[in-house]
Amino acid sequence: MENNISSPNTARLLISCPDKPGIVATVSQFLFQSGANILDASQHSTDPAEGLFFMRMEVKMPYNPEFDAAFQQQVATPLNMTWKISHAGQRKRMAILVSAYDHCLLDLLWRWRSGELEVDIPLVISNHATLEKDCTALGIPFYYLPVSSETKASQEAAIGKLMADQQIDFIVLARYMQILSPQFVSLFPQRIINIHHSFLPAFAGARPYQHAYNRGVKLIGATAHYVTDELDEGPIIEQDVARVSHKHAINDLVMLGRDIERQVLTRAVKAHIDDRVIVLGNKTIVF
Amino acid sequence: MENNISSPNTARLLISCPDKPGIVATVSQFLFQSGANILDASQHSTDPAEGLFFMRMEVKMPYNPEFDAAFQQQVATPLNMTWKISHAGQRKRMAILVSAYDHCLLDLLWRWRSGELEVDIPLVISNHATLEKDCTALGIPFYYLPVSSETKASQEAAIGKLMADQQIDFIVLARYMQILSPQFVSLFPQRIINIHHSFLPAFAGARPYQHAYNRGVKLIGATAHYVTDELDEGPIIEQDVARVSHKHAINDLVMLGRDIERQVLTRAVKAHIDDRVIVLGNKTIVF
Amino acid sequence: MENNISSPNTARLLISCPDKPGIVATVSQFLFQSGANILDASQHSTDPAEGLFFMRMEVKMPYNPEFDAAFQQQVATPLNMTWKISHAGQRKRMAILVSAYDHCLLDLLWRWRSGELEVDIPLVISNHATLEKDCTALGIPFYYLPVSSETKASQEAAIGKLMADQQIDFIVLARYMQILSPQFVSLFPQRIINIHHSFLPAFAGARPYQHAYNRGVKLIGATAHYVTDELDEGPIIEQDVARVSHKHAINDLVMLGRDIERQVLTRAVKAHIDDRVIVLGNKTIVF
Amino acid sequence: MENNISSPNTARLLISCPDKPGIVATVSQFLFQSGANILDASQHSTDPAEGLFFMRMEVKMPYNPEFDAAFQQQVATPLNMTWKISHAGQRKRMAILVSAYDHCLLDLLWRWRSGELEVDIPLVISNHATLEKDCTALGIPFYYLPVSSETKASQEAAIGKLMADQQIDFIVLARYMQILSPQFVSLFPQRIINIHHSFLPAFAGARPYQHAYNRGVKLIGATAHYVTDELDEGPIIEQDVARVSHKHAINDLVMLGRDIERQVLTRAVKAHIDDRVIVLGNKTIVF
Repeated sequence: MENNISSPNTARLLISCPDKPGIVATVSQFLFQSGANILDASQHSTDPAEGLFFMRMEVKMPYNPEFDAAFQQQVATPLNMTWKISHAGQRKRMAILVSAYDHCLLDLLWRWRSGELEVDIPLVISNHATLEKDCTALGIPFYYLPVSSETKASQEAAIGKLMADQQIDFIVLARYMQILSPQFVSLFPQRIINIHHSFLPAFAGARPYQHAYNRGVKLIGATAHYVTDELDEGPIIEQDVARVSHKHAINDLVMLGRDIERQVLTRAVKAHIDDRVIVLGNKTIVF
Repeated sequence: MENNISSPNTARLLISCPDKPGIVATVSQFLFQSGANILDASQHSTDPAEGLFFMRMEVKMPYNPEFDAAFQQQVATPLNMTWKISHAGQRKRMAILVSAYDHCLLDLLWRWRSGELEVDIPLVISNHATLEKDCTALGIPFYYLPVSSETKASQEAAIGKLMADQQIDFIVLARYMQILSPQFVSLFPQRIINIHHSFLPAFAGARPYQHAYNRGVKLIGATAHYVTDELDEGPIIEQDVARVSHKHAINDLVMLGRDIERQVLTRAVKAHIDDRVIVLGNKTIVF
Repeated sequence: MENNISSPNTARLLISCPDKPGIVATVSQFLFQSGANILDASQHSTDPAEGLFFMRMEVKMPYNPEFDAAFQQQVATPLNMTWKISHAGQRKRMAILVSAYDHCLLDLLWRWRSGELEVDIPLVISNHATLEKDCTALGIPFYYLPVSSETKASQEAAIGKLMADQQIDFIVLARYMQILSPQFVSLFPQRIINIHHSFLPAFAGARPYQHAYNRGVKLIGATAHYVTDELDEGPIIEQDVARVSHKHAINDLVMLGRDIERQVLTRAVKAHIDDRVIVLGNKTIVF
Repeated sequence: MENNISSPNTARLLISCPDKPGIVATVSQFLFQSGANILDASQHSTDPAEGLFFMRMEVKMPYNPEFDAAFQQQVATPLNMTWKISHAGQRKRMAILVSAYDHCLLDLLWRWRSGELEVDIPLVISNHATLEKDCTALGIPFYYLPVSSETKASQEAAIGKLMADQQIDFIVLARYMQILSPQFVSLFPQRIINIHHSFLPAFAGARPYQHAYNRGVKLIGATAHYVTDELDEGPIIEQDVARVSHKHAINDLVMLGRDIERQVLTRAVKAHIDDRVIVLGNKTIVF
């Protein structure tokens, strides 16, 4: 039940570790003894040279406050695992940063309202006042924090404070046209998702539609990735493209691009919410 | 400039007629003498057995109140043409009928608000009150006209009166879960667009996602078509599909389907607004 | 390593059974004790109402002639499993039946020659002599078995004998324009793959491109499915579509369709060869 | 009839010129007087800043040896046109250069043999002997011209001589792993089509699948373009992509990529054969 509304006692386990025989046996045995039933799971190991093992499991199990410590001690430490568990009943808290373009924001809000994105949205922050009503009409607090080169540091500090106050788990840049400082980014490693309006690594940087137009490509694209200190270089979560032709002026590319941007961003956000993404260096595994 | 915002003195000419040599010459000569410049045009003729010719021209030309009569007399009548001309400066008036599902309605409203759909929306009518706020927040009048088997005739009469009062050009059924009577349909020939949530002709009728699930198809689809008296049998304007797997329960098909439905419907509506569609029997030509 | 050339001691385990906690633990524990390392695996359970569990595991393990009996006794019988194991080192034996269209046959032969399809092809059978040279040039025996309504029974018997003599595991109908008898089909349950040139269930039966053309669909498709006694009704393995427009005459649909047909058939055949398909009633699970 | 087998007296006219009112009228009037009937046509003008007009017309007309001179004098010169006309009855002569990879070559040969590519193939040239039998089995002469850094100039001269002897119209590099010299390229301006195994401009240069793997993209692509002196920088004719995931090792990307490469190259070659491509600076218009 890939996209289905999760029941509150569903949990998702994400694991990566050095490959060796017996990992699935050990984990599934531990889960069985914890009363868990596996609803959906995938395992994958890379080629022997790399020697890594990845696993996602979606299980139904009673909540047990001692599960984490026991799993760490009996399974994760012996097998040298990086792991995390999320409980569908504990919804993640997502902040959205946006400028004046509405398409990505509206798509996220609509899917949240329809129950497709099982997440809480405690706030939207923007450096423009434009989209305030779209948020408040849905009962979502909207913070208008304008920014200039002089106020960049203080504005970012204000953002950071809101994140802390609201216990934000991850941030979505829904066409937020500002570059976050390395200090800010370091507070949310692999927890800031950006949408870039090109098929990266083609047309990184500013004005990708203009560059795509100039180069005469036959497809335009969008890329959702985790933000790192290097602009447009973070681990890619999702990408897609749409066909264009000589009939499309730059404005048409921008218009067509809006559809790809919002779809790609939404899919990436959903994968993050559903704990489907493992980051491995500069790449992702999306189960 | 396929999707670009049209300038007010852009006109679009749609023509179908029996094929013979000289049609393009006659039409383009007439347009040239009328001061028109061709921005984008396509012509197509079917195979000799059928012997039909189709043309769409997008031209820039000064408004001339005598153009239509002169074109009819000098070009259309001699060549036995079915034709129409639309002026981008005279926006069509589109009514939306909807039930309680919001996705198709919201997508149309967003694209209207962003300027992507160059159309006026004088009203939205629904047999449920659910989506009133979504419309009125954008300044669009919303009419709640509930319907039961007893009140069907009078409700439809009320809809018809609103259409007449508001001088509606065409109607979009954005998941309107009621079947319109043949009398009503006959008032808007080739001017009611419906979205059916399957890849027609597969799974016509009710509950297409359930039937798709039962049959185990690997793609689900949506179809936008003009409404005729025969349910789900009207001329198809646009279709698209999305990939599904054994992981998708019926609810997931419904959720995924929402994305295809709104995209397919929007593309069909846009093609209609931009005068790209010629209906030929039970088929369409979409330039 | 999804498509990678399998090493000879790779095995694939396909399991379906009633869902209950502990299945993955039991299977993976047994595999671990058998010296197996899991390379790639997926598990999925349907909703509680249906209550079924499915699993595919690709493992590296030493060949052990007693594995099957032990697995049956210790794992499969207690858990009421339907299961099978395939060893990559024991290539399946695939027969191809074809008429006079070459595109599906050539695509299969090319992928076999390139190593993409890890299968043996002991023979190709056709009711036309047309494609003999294409097969024999690659060293594949070609049997020309013409058929008429009078000779249908004896021709099918001759095919059956060749299948038995050559110990054929499964049959691919690569646009074989004859209908096999229920008797023949019953010899190869879930082991005959057919390609139908439409997006089933739309346009089942003869002349699907003609029907698609008449209906004015905007996408044409192809469907690969296991053959059952009911024509075009067997479990679907794979489907895909391509976009068409008013510019495409029927001959163009046929030409475009060839590309979809060969891609869809090849993907289905590959999934079958790689033991990715579980048939469940009239549906498939393709891992 | 987009892909249909052309009748011998079909001609295709490709025009580009400065935009001004009356071009279509002038051309279509001339064609009408020449006895031509328009089967399919498209016109497009760029935005006023650029001010260019493009047209493709497919017409049925009797062959007239004086047509070209008359068109030049009465239409092309006054309107400052770049133009060309091709007659379907005079098939283009296509040479294929290939190294040891067979997939692009075989796809072109199949489609030629099936009548889908309406072209003559007087020869295939390779720097490896590997694919000789695939060509000669179809009656196509194969020239094995090995090359080393010392013999590069003489090998290229030999290729050039074959091109001249065989009156080759255009050249397809079907994964020919050698870089042609500027001198050679200058002999075939906009008449050498190359397939690059990435979604250009991403991953230009050598080993694109390795770079795509390293970057962790979610789609791999291929690009067909006209060859210019700048490697991988020529005007793009066609592009497409395929979805990949963490399950795909580099070898899998190579295998998947073969399918995209051959499809993209074939579509580009077909567009060139059917006179659908106008080159404008470093971009193409593909009607």
